[in-house]
Amino acid sequence: MPADGTFTPTARSKLRRRPQRGAYDEAAVYAVLDAHVLGHVGYVIDGQPFVTPTAYWREGGKLYWHGAAASRMLASVDGAPICLTVSLLDGFVLGRSGFAHSLNYRSVMAFGRARLIEDLDAKRAAMDAFIERLYPGRPDVLRPATAAELKQIALAEMTIEEASAKVREGGPADYAPDVGWPAWAGVVPVETRLGAADGDGPGGPPKISLY
Amino acid sequence: MPADGTFTPTARSKLRRRPQRGAYDEAAVYAVLDAHVLGHVGYVIDGQPFVTPTAYWREGGKLYWHGAAASRMLASVDGAPICLTVSLLDGFVLGRSGFAHSLNYRSVMAFGRARLIEDLDAKRAAMDAFIERLYPGRPDVLRPATAAELKQIALAEMTIEEASAKVREGGPADYAPDVGWPAWAGVVPVETRLGAADGDGPGGPPKISLY
Repeated sequence: MPADGTFTPTARSKLRRRPQRGAYDEAAVYAVLDAHVLGHVGYVIDGQPFVTPTAYWREGGKLYWHGAAASRMLASVDGAPICLTVSLLDGFVLGRSGFAHSLNYRSVMAFGRARLIEDLDAKRAAMDAFIERLYPGRPDVLRPATAAELKQIALAEMTIEEASAKVREGGPADYAPDVGWPAWAGVVPVETRLGAADGDGPGGPPKISLY
Repeated sequence: MPADGTFTPTARSKLRRRPQRGAYDEAAVYAVLDAHVLGHVGYVIDGQPFVTPTAYWREGGKLYWHGAAASRMLASVDGAPICLTVSLLDGFVLGRSGFAHSLNYRSVMAFGRARLIEDLDAKRAAMDAFIERLYPGRPDVLRPATAAELKQIALAEMTIEEASAKVREGGPADYAPDVGWPAWAGVVPVETRLGAADGDGPGGPPKISLY
């Protein structure tokens, strides 16, 4: 974790386009990372980029994701440079010209090297932390994982070496050539919410901490 | 576009994990690509993977995305191998053990090489196609783009060489060790919808074809 609460950008993470929309401080980076569960892990095999969508979670300055022990992605990321990107679409921004159109979004690109965690106790603790992060209290009511199950899981950990957050919000920019042009302009927000739970068992559906 | 409507997987796109959830046919791949607008472009600079969230659109067997002409991402992708991944989170799947938890999702990994399109008429047509794809009929009511504006845009095109779709839906799998364990199990769907439009101008907010 950076000592002063800010990730120091190098050429890898420094925002070149619209730096006014960007931030490198932990609070901004973690706010985006903690708003989602589905991230995109970028890695390279023989020069070919791969982007695998995967569930992730954060603990302090580390990101975690997991998958099947036989996963190509997880076999490939041990020790490798990674870019884990998280993004949320928040709205459609409509100007009076094509050029003035945009999207509202929150995103983070996080860089580091992944390592696989093999220790079963560490795996158990991490998987419980993931469940707890999504569904507070739920690890206490679940059937505990067996060693055989934990062996089927590959668990990746990445210390965030650098990260940048980028956020766009609000309406279309005032754009002089468009003033008075007779077209509607504004924002249409995109909202994400939980639907009705469908299941059975004691206790009912848990509160999901993302929403 | 593949002659028989199916992308032929090589090692790059062949699904190794849970192939029963996967598909290589155009209909399955295009259904996911056409359900979203925010994709994740994976590319490599000096061995380092980058995953940039970006708006994309599809025309036939090609994917397009754009950005500022000064964008590092767009400068880096001309002629380069790309993995463009699109994913949608559809639900939380809760079993009676941690091992039986999952997410419902739809995703596509599309592979190809990008090329930048420089011709201004081609850029104009592509940008209009993007607006039309999101907001049918809207290019007709917008102030037309100027040459100066089009020169500020970099436009990337990628013929989809290979692609795989992966979808998980439904409830938790029946998992013998969990039978009778006293915890709730089921699905909590994630729903995406448009909020109330906020803007002004003749015609009102357009219908957004994604939702």
